[in-house]
Amino acid sequence: MKIPTALRAVLCASTLSLSLPAAAAPVQGTGVAWEIVEGLTTEIGPRPAGSQAEDRARDWGAQKLTALGFRNVRVEEFKTLGWQRGPESAKLTAPYPQPLAITALGFSVPTPKGGLKAELVYFPTLAALEAAPAGSLKGRVAFIDHAMRAAQDGSGYGPYGDVRRKGPTVASRKGAAGVVIRSAGTDSHRNPHTGVTIFAKDVKPIPAGAVSNPDADLIARTAARGQPLAIDLTLMGKPFPDATSGNVIADLPGRDPSLPIIVLACHLDSWDLATGAVDDASGCGIITAAALAAQEGGQPLRTIRVLWSGNEETGIAGGGGDDYAKRHGSEPHALAMESDFGADKVWQVRFSHAPQDKGLADRVRAALWPMGIVPHEGKADGGADVEAIIAAQNLAVIDLGQDGTHYFDLHHTPDDTLDKVDPAALQQNVDAWAAVLKVVANEAAPIGKVQRAD
Amino acid sequence: MKIPTALRAVLCASTLSLSLPAAAAPVQGTGVAWEIVEGLTTEIGPRPAGSQAEDRARDWGAQKLTALGFRNVRVEEFKTLGWQRGPESAKLTAPYPQPLAITALGFSVPTPKGGLKAELVYFPTLAALEAAPAGSLKGRVAFIDHAMRAAQDGSGYGPYGDVRRKGPTVASRKGAAGVVIRSAGTDSHRNPHTGVTIFAKDVKPIPAGAVSNPDADLIARTAARGQPLAIDLTLMGKPFPDATSGNVIADLPGRDPSLPIIVLACHLDSWDLATGAVDDASGCGIITAAALAAQEGGQPLRTIRVLWSGNEETGIAGGGGDDYAKRHGSEPHALAMESDFGADKVWQVRFSHAPQDKGLADRVRAALWPMGIVPHEGKADGGADVEAIIAAQNLAVIDLGQDGTHYFDLHHTPDDTLDKVDPAALQQNVDAWAAVLKVVANEAAPIGKVQRAD
Repeated sequence: MKIPTALRAVLCASTLSLSLPAAAAPVQGTGVAWEIVEGLTTEIGPRPAGSQAEDRARDWGAQKLTALGFRNVRVEEFKTLGWQRGPESAKLTAPYPQPLAITALGFSVPTPKGGLKAELVYFPTLAALEAAPAGSLKGRVAFIDHAMRAAQDGSGYGPYGDVRRKGPTVASRKGAAGVVIRSAGTDSHRNPHTGVTIFAKDVKPIPAGAVSNPDADLIARTAARGQPLAIDLTLMGKPFPDATSGNVIADLPGRDPSLPIIVLACHLDSWDLATGAVDDASGCGIITAAALAAQEGGQPLRTIRVLWSGNEETGIAGGGGDDYAKRHGSEPHALAMESDFGADKVWQVRFSHAPQDKGLADRVRAALWPMGIVPHEGKADGGADVEAIIAAQNLAVIDLGQDGTHYFDLHHTPDDTLDKVDPAALQQNVDAWAAVLKVVANEAAPIGKVQRAD
Repeated sequence: MKIPTALRAVLCASTLSLSLPAAAAPVQGTGVAWEIVEGLTTEIGPRPAGSQAEDRARDWGAQKLTALGFRNVRVEEFKTLGWQRGPESAKLTAPYPQPLAITALGFSVPTPKGGLKAELVYFPTLAALEAAPAGSLKGRVAFIDHAMRAAQDGSGYGPYGDVRRKGPTVASRKGAAGVVIRSAGTDSHRNPHTGVTIFAKDVKPIPAGAVSNPDADLIARTAARGQPLAIDLTLMGKPFPDATSGNVIADLPGRDPSLPIIVLACHLDSWDLATGAVDDASGCGIITAAALAAQEGGQPLRTIRVLWSGNEETGIAGGGGDDYAKRHGSEPHALAMESDFGADKVWQVRFSHAPQDKGLADRVRAALWPMGIVPHEGKADGGADVEAIIAAQNLAVIDLGQDGTHYFDLHHTPDDTLDKVDPAALQQNVDAWAAVLKVVANEAAPIGKVQRAD
């Protein structure tokens, strides 16, 4: 659209004026949680595991935690398998030439020099690909579609995210030279969602990428016309060994240092495509601000520890949670919590506890009741950054479930930026976490071990 | 986020099942307008002026219009100044290293080999840049911020779009080596908005790009910290002469071929970043379907012509509207209309007519009244594809104003794809246009010339 004549007068008037308002400031928040999210996204930016930026983020985090009054602030580095993105592009070449918005999945291997030019075979589901005869995709590229939709509890990410986690392995088993998936995401923007894929040990890793939802729609519409599809695919990302990652750990000592501690986790690394505002700078902001807020009524009985974990995103071969459990597995822990599901409001709580801790659980639920947070059945399991220590010590766990309706619009995309964080929702998280901590960190009675079936 | 343990059971169950539903089909519409939008976006895709894709789109359009029963279907080629995108990237290098999502503006010239590395100077408004001393930006890159917000009538695009249209010229006058603007858009995605800039004849063209709104927020936050900013900028796009564009024109002859005709316009070209679903395949779908729908009560008195114009987007040096007026300026026209503001519903109507046509205008308004379309004051001026023929023949004009609240979320971005078109809203446009055409194309009395002040 060109500028309509009717607007030209407005335009001429405005350019003559020097009294235009200054540009509207972006949304601004206040408080410790916001400071951390704003700082990490502005001063560090993308911080993929094993990168110099993740290293800078550790220094930034240690300084910040020290400045906030935490004790025993330390950086604990570890080695891991890294993955480095390279140049990436794709286009349909038949039946109609169309550029595609694509991004490589973590642990994809590179396409051949000059690109991979091959037939693209459409599968509406992962199950359809699994049903394809062995060897039937030799020299071809598989496209895997799916139908993920938004859900408040994020439950679509289990089955539909599996297209990303397992699809490339299945495609490789069928002989495919490469694989492209519909992004495991719920938005409609030309920003594909990255994330790790996990090649089984018995298959050859192949180039693996995700296209955005609008591009997947285009592929589906084109496939529906019944003519063969062809793709020209370039994905140059590759794994690299001996990457340095690390955790940042800090304590707010309790009145009784002999009591088992409360550990709160987030992850400091982000995907490389964005500044990781919701995944997971927000988590680090929330747990840190909440730990401090729990001091407000007086020093709690138990020590509260924050773990800003390294390499959560590509940590399948050893992430910050594993390293933490290795180093700190002999220190007595009582309970673990993790924040790694964005910055929207907490709406539900789950609590895995020993049978004798029902009273404690009731007091936690009562503390959340005035905030509109609903108790839910089902196991609380923390997440990747605490699962190793939970398993090692059979810890009690509280999950404060955030509203995930929009989380998979942003997750692992270039759109995970500060403007997506609502300062009021972020603060609601802090308030909910602080309410829980005031109960559990002041629990004088032993907090029981939780025996799990799996 | 890794997959929570609680979801693993779901996940294992689903991958064992072969009875998963097929992937949800993308939104599907029906009817001529939808067929055109779906077809152009699927079978042609991006079709920038002067490209082979725009040429294919002309063939596609001529075939489609012939198949729909239009007469005198012809392609009229013309030469124009083209612009070709090249590789493009940008990063802040100081005070914090941060990649930026950037795209070149149309008629940008290339950065030097190896990129332009320079200080980045922040200006909150175009007026602030205009107030900078002459020569003060020598060797530097200007960043121009602004505060465009969504408006139903799209009126923000006048003053704020000016940052794109005029900003680069102003920056060049101050000696800048390059210019980066906040996209003229209202979304919050990492998809910058392209669009032409217009270098005044007395200034040296410089590399000019737009960053996405989240990236502009980042630059603003960084600038607010008070340290000098630096950028590393690569924008390799450049103009090219003697590009071939062209119009597709087709008629539905009226019962009285001697009466001046009604001309309806859209544009066939799109920006290169997306498939141009809302800008402006939808316009072509709307006018074409409406022209056909106007036949439903019987052949109208006057001939209705559709003009699918070439090179609207970069047509400042001669677009389809100019070529149409040159070739067809001697054929009598009665009234012009254009659809080039997306695919959302029509909510207002404006009518520029001769004083003696008040009765006709009242009948048009009455036809729209049951559809909730409100008469508005103010001049109707069509748009770029009809402005030359309107000026040449002093034509009456009807503007059916679409809801533009979300138009500048998508405008000139990679996100302008089919999924953004609501088939029901598209059909509402067709119905509104057809209601108007049934009145004006059956007007036996002369439709008066409109004398304009400018």
